Amino acid sequence: MVADYLQDVGKYPVLPKVQPGEVASMLPGMAPRQGESLDRILDDYARIIEPNVTHWNHPGFLGYFSITGSGPGILGEALSAALNVNAMLWRTSPAATELEERVCDWLRQMLGLPEIFRGHINDTASVSTMLALAAARHAQPDLDIRELGLAGRPEIPELVVYISDQAHSSCDKAVMTLGLGLRQVRRIVSDEQFRMRLDSLAEAVEADRRAGRRPMAVVATAGTTSTTSVDPMDRIAELCQREGLWLHVDAAYAGSAAICPELRGQFSGWERADSIVFNPHKWLFTPIDCSVLLMRDVDTLKSAFSLVPDYLKTDEEGVTNLMDLGVQLGRRFRSLKLWMVIRAFGVEGLQDRIREHCRMARDLVSLIDQDPDFAVVAPVPFSVVCFRWIAGDSPEQQDSLNEVLLNEVNAQGPVFVTSTVLKGRYTLHLAIGNLKTTEQHIQEAWQIVRTTADRLST
Amino acid sequence: MVADYLQDVGKYPVLPKVQPGEVASMLPGMAPRQGESLDRILDDYARIIEPNVTHWNHPGFLGYFSITGSGPGILGEALSAALNVNAMLWRTSPAATELEERVCDWLRQMLGLPEIFRGHINDTASVSTMLALAAARHAQPDLDIRELGLAGRPEIPELVVYISDQAHSSCDKAVMTLGLGLRQVRRIVSDEQFRMRLDSLAEAVEADRRAGRRPMAVVATAGTTSTTSVDPMDRIAELCQREGLWLHVDAAYAGSAAICPELRGQFSGWERADSIVFNPHKWLFTPIDCSVLLMRDVDTLKSAFSLVPDYLKTDEEGVTNLMDLGVQLGRRFRSLKLWMVIRAFGVEGLQDRIREHCRMARDLVSLIDQDPDFAVVAPVPFSVVCFRWIAGDSPEQQDSLNEVLLNEVNAQGPVFVTSTVLKGRYTLHLAIGNLKTTEQHIQEAWQIVRTTADRLST
Repeated sequence: MVADYLQDVGKYPVLPKVQPGEVASMLPGMAPRQGESLDRILDDYARIIEPNVTHWNHPGFLGYFSITGSGPGILGEALSAALNVNAMLWRTSPAATELEERVCDWLRQMLGLPEIFRGHINDTASVSTMLALAAARHAQPDLDIRELGLAGRPEIPELVVYISDQAHSSCDKAVMTLGLGLRQVRRIVSDEQFRMRLDSLAEAVEADRRAGRRPMAVVATAGTTSTTSVDPMDRIAELCQREGLWLHVDAAYAGSAAICPELRGQFSGWERADSIVFNPHKWLFTPIDCSVLLMRDVDTLKSAFSLVPDYLKTDEEGVTNLMDLGVQLGRRFRSLKLWMVIRAFGVEGLQDRIREHCRMARDLVSLIDQDPDFAVVAPVPFSVVCFRWIAGDSPEQQDSLNEVLLNEVNAQGPVFVTSTVLKGRYTLHLAIGNLKTTEQHIQEAWQIVRTTADRLST
Repeated sequence: MVADYLQDVGKYPVLPKVQPGEVASMLPGMAPRQGESLDRILDDYARIIEPNVTHWNHPGFLGYFSITGSGPGILGEALSAALNVNAMLWRTSPAATELEERVCDWLRQMLGLPEIFRGHINDTASVSTMLALAAARHAQPDLDIRELGLAGRPEIPELVVYISDQAHSSCDKAVMTLGLGLRQVRRIVSDEQFRMRLDSLAEAVEADRRAGRRPMAVVATAGTTSTTSVDPMDRIAELCQREGLWLHVDAAYAGSAAICPELRGQFSGWERADSIVFNPHKWLFTPIDCSVLLMRDVDTLKSAFSLVPDYLKTDEEGVTNLMDLGVQLGRRFRSLKLWMVIRAFGVEGLQDRIREHCRMARDLVSLIDQDPDFAVVAPVPFSVVCFRWIAGDSPEQQDSLNEVLLNEVNAQGPVFVTSTVLKGRYTLHLAIGNLKTTEQHIQEAWQIVRTTADRLST
């Protein structure tokens, strides 16, 4: 069934033609009393579930960040589920612990990062970023927030986190969760190329200091969610060093590009970060979930989170116990699928696919550039193209025409494109990241956009 | 390979005979440049990985909470990995969203909980409990911690969380992460049966109020990690109602037992909780990870965490967008495996297995009770037996003899038992939860313990 799905997924519309509540209405309201045969369950899977998911593994899925659960990764997940280890301690799965360390070090080398970085795997970038900011909070000298908390302590200043106006919402969620308050997130304005403006950052840090608040961390994004712009990490790192701020780099999507030497220049400065998150489940063909958090000083993370109750004490010395590195005690064997993906493709195979996706994005840019009715509205450093239909008599009308266009395009089935807002304007966002997406799919997508716009014009 | 593993896992020692660093030394220091064949990768899997995990799916795995990744669940994971959906929004996977809601409601009914509870799936109980306490924090009137944070606000009192001295470390980690400070965790003393003492709880709450702190939440445990004792939830719920405290119930392990009507009486009072965590990946035969958080008022959780950036805005009204219910944006399709497990076993099939595990635990208690050299040292409400070798001339000597005994038992291979500390004393902890564990395995385990003790005595 897995092989058939992967082969035939293109037969489905990317977005299922289903209304809210329709799937639920096909499912019984109560669990069955007696067990049912697997044949019957799998029939229901084929009838109710498979046709009614959004097909992220479809070659025409060009929304958000397009991803791939590749064959070797799927096999890895099946094997992980069979082993069913909880790698909370070295002892509870030596191979899972040591493979995770080794594979994260492979990735570190592939990304061109210095040896000091130590990686481990979390479920999502949301959690990786939260852990990184928790480490930044823990690194505040003399506050002992782990032990004493933030409340009821007038001596503790507001701790401020700086991100660009293009940064991912996971940064805000992390700040909320850690009890720092959304009001302590400074969304620094970005420049015309959607990169954090350093002058505004410096001003914001200074203003906060003047007001008695304490600047704590900057999250620089390498590959923002809307346009994949890259913040100027070199200069941000300098500022962080000068000001004593933690630098976390969110490279959840674009980190994969750093495995290609010719693209790595865009990441200049990230080697000076305190922490970096990079998700192989985004653009490294690994099934969701797999987020790697690379720490310059993993001991800070460990001292923020380690807590060993009696029932988890073990004798081994000098080993990594993954439970010490975060909130979650239970840990799936996520490195297995990642190891299988890296080995099956090889570094060069992975580089080839990343390059091919970037090349297809550039080709799409050429197509759009040749069309007077459309405009590419942001630089395309990787595999995401942001563009807009130049139509309507006012910006507001243009926005709503683009929204209509997108809905009409997505209603047809073969492709799924998403939207974002850039400088206040509704924008189409097309992301290439599935291994089965070919030039033909991109040309077809463009044809659909183009002909739909023609139809709407008349 | 999956089927062979499940059939033959008993051939392995439960704990692999491997030293720290040994697995790492078998893995190349760098990723391969060229792709490798799947045959070669799977050979290495069979040679390096499989023999060197701790075999959680082994019938002799009797440590921590023993678990099972059952066949239907493994199939479900493979299918989820192939679909590779990210169910962050209804739109990004209608079937994943609606199946999750439906299956959580099946569970709610199976547990005998009122209709008001709404469930969703997280990775681990650590995260579920953190989300529940974040909701409790958000529910504090007039503090607006989401927006304003805890720091730099002298008007905010210390917020206190009450747990028993038997509660899980995830409660402490949640309090740390949320910025409340470990010092605001009150570990209420437990009684002779390891249940939270209500008089001590009431005193602690009163003392905190007198000192100007604000009691915020109680975490009651139904099935503590060491002995599976159950806190008096009825009386705790009364106190929480009287004092205006949030009641979170940690039923991560024992929740499964509530599907058996004859065991449900032990959970009396949990229907009055504000939130309940229950992990099907512990004792409901679902591969790790799968943790269900049931909320009495899911809107409080949603208003604590919802945050919708431009690139995630969608049109559908009245649908659940799972990203609104926690920290993580990315969401695996975890309900698929759970649905397959519940259907394949049926409610009665699941009840039978739970009952059988509890019966085997009672039989082991009988064996131990008949042996003058051993003593069961805690009540056995479910499938975990805590016992001790009555040996040595002093408590300290007895502790170290039991530790030696445990290490010698585990070194032999067929079984793996863990330890805990009860009232300061080293204790053996044997948990039954794997579907392949039979009476014979338990008798064999007991024989190994018994003969090892004999050998050590001479």
